[in-house]
Amino acid sequence: MARGLEILPVDGVGEVRPGDDLSRLLAHAEPDLADGDVLVVTQKVVSKAEAQLVPIDPNDPDSKSTIVEGESVRVLRRRGDLVISETRHGFVCANAGVDLSNVEHGWAALLPEDPDRSARRLRDGLRGRLGVNVAIVISDTFGRAWRRGLTDVAIGCAGIKAVVDLRGTDDALGRELAVTEVCVVDELAAAAELVMGKSSGICAAVVRGVDPSWLGRGEVHAEVVRPPAEDLFR
Amino acid sequence: MARGLEILPVDGVGEVRPGDDLSRLLAHAEPDLADGDVLVVTQKVVSKAEAQLVPIDPNDPDSKSTIVEGESVRVLRRRGDLVISETRHGFVCANAGVDLSNVEHGWAALLPEDPDRSARRLRDGLRGRLGVNVAIVISDTFGRAWRRGLTDVAIGCAGIKAVVDLRGTDDALGRELAVTEVCVVDELAAAAELVMGKSSGICAAVVRGVDPSWLGRGEVHAEVVRPPAEDLFR
Repeated sequence: MARGLEILPVDGVGEVRPGDDLSRLLAHAEPDLADGDVLVVTQKVVSKAEAQLVPIDPNDPDSKSTIVEGESVRVLRRRGDLVISETRHGFVCANAGVDLSNVEHGWAALLPEDPDRSARRLRDGLRGRLGVNVAIVISDTFGRAWRRGLTDVAIGCAGIKAVVDLRGTDDALGRELAVTEVCVVDELAAAAELVMGKSSGICAAVVRGVDPSWLGRGEVHAEVVRPPAEDLFR
Repeated sequence: MARGLEILPVDGVGEVRPGDDLSRLLAHAEPDLADGDVLVVTQKVVSKAEAQLVPIDPNDPDSKSTIVEGESVRVLRRRGDLVISETRHGFVCANAGVDLSNVEHGWAALLPEDPDRSARRLRDGLRGRLGVNVAIVISDTFGRAWRRGLTDVAIGCAGIKAVVDLRGTDDALGRELAVTEVCVVDELAAAAELVMGKSSGICAAVVRGVDPSWLGRGEVHAEVVRPPAEDLFR
C-alpha cells in the first residue's frame, strides 16, 4: 500500500450542460484514472448534467424562497434570508441545497434526485469507458450548526463504504475501542475541496491511495443520513 | 505551485508522555518538514504532552460523568450515556472532549487548555529545531448533529487562516459569489485523518502543497467557534 494519499485536481472538464454525459467528460479529462482511485465530483456538475435546474427570477427574492420551500420537507430554522431545512433526501442544510453560484443567470441548481444513484451511474460509465474500477463521491458544500465556515461533505457515493466501522478494533494501547465510526466519504469530500476552490472552475478531484478495505458497496443515504429517531437537534 | 496535495502519515513518534516536548518528538520523526507544509497533530498527543490527564475509575460510570460535567459550561442534550455539551473553548461535542481511548488505563484525556496556543508553541518549536516555517492544525474527532459517523475537525491552528474567505471572488461564470467562507483547517484535519486511523498509533500527518495564500495568522477560537448570538441550534 502507498504510504500516503495524493489529491489531484481534474482540469479541463469545461462547462457542463443539461444532458451531457458526465462520465464521457470526466473520462476525457482524466484518462489515467486507475483501479482503487476515488473520484470526487461536485454536486453542481452532476445537477447540471442531470438537468436539475429550475428558472429563477433573480430580481424577485420570493422566487428563490418558493423554490427552497418546494425542495424542503421540513424547515428547522429561519433567520432573515437563511433557511435551514431538511430535504427529501434527509439532508439538513441551508436553502435545501438550492444554489445560484456557477449556474447560468436566471437558473438555480437543485440537488440531484438520488445522489447515490448518480454516483453509481458515473461509476458504471467510467468502468465502461476506461475499464477501471473507481469509487465515486459526490460532494456539496454545507454549513455546520456550531462551527463557522463551510466544508464539503458527501451527498452520494458508489464503490466505497460511506462510514467505516472501527468498533472493536484494538487501539494502540491494546484495549478495545468502544466506538469509532468514521465517515470517510465526508473526509474524502473535504480533502478534495482543498484542491478545487470555488472560482477556478475545477469540478472534480482524484484521491489516490485510500485504504483498499474501504472499497465496496456503500451509500450516503443509508449510512450517513441520521434517522429522525436518533436525532437530538431536529 | 504543485498540481495537487500529498498527505503523508508521520511514523515513529511513539508513545507520548506527560511533559514530553512534542516538537522534539515530531522533528525527530519527520526531519524533512519543509516551509509551507501543514502538520496535522491529533489532540490526544497534545493533551498527553501537556499533562491534560485526570484519573478516572473505569469501574464507576459516575467517574466519567463527573469529569464531563466539570469540562462543560453548558449541556445541550443528553441521551443515555451520551452528553452533548459546550466546552469552555466553545466547542460543542460529545462528552466535552473527554476521552479514554489510547490513554493509559485509569486515566482520561481532556482537551488542551488553549489549543490555538498549543499549535503556536508547536510551530515555534519546529521552527527552532528544524528552521522551517510550517503551519499546525490540532485535530479531534467530533460527531455531527444530522450526519452519522465521525470526522476529524480542527480545535487549534497556527500559521494558517482557519477560514478562507472567498466572498466577492468571481465564480467560474464571472458573476460575484455571495458568500463562500471555507473552513480549510477542518478540511485539512479531515484529510489527515484519512491516513491516520485509530488503531495504527499514527498521531500526525503532513499535508504538502496547500495554497500559499492560506498561510498566515489564524486561530480556531476566533474564526471557527460560532458565537452564541449567531447560533440557531444551542
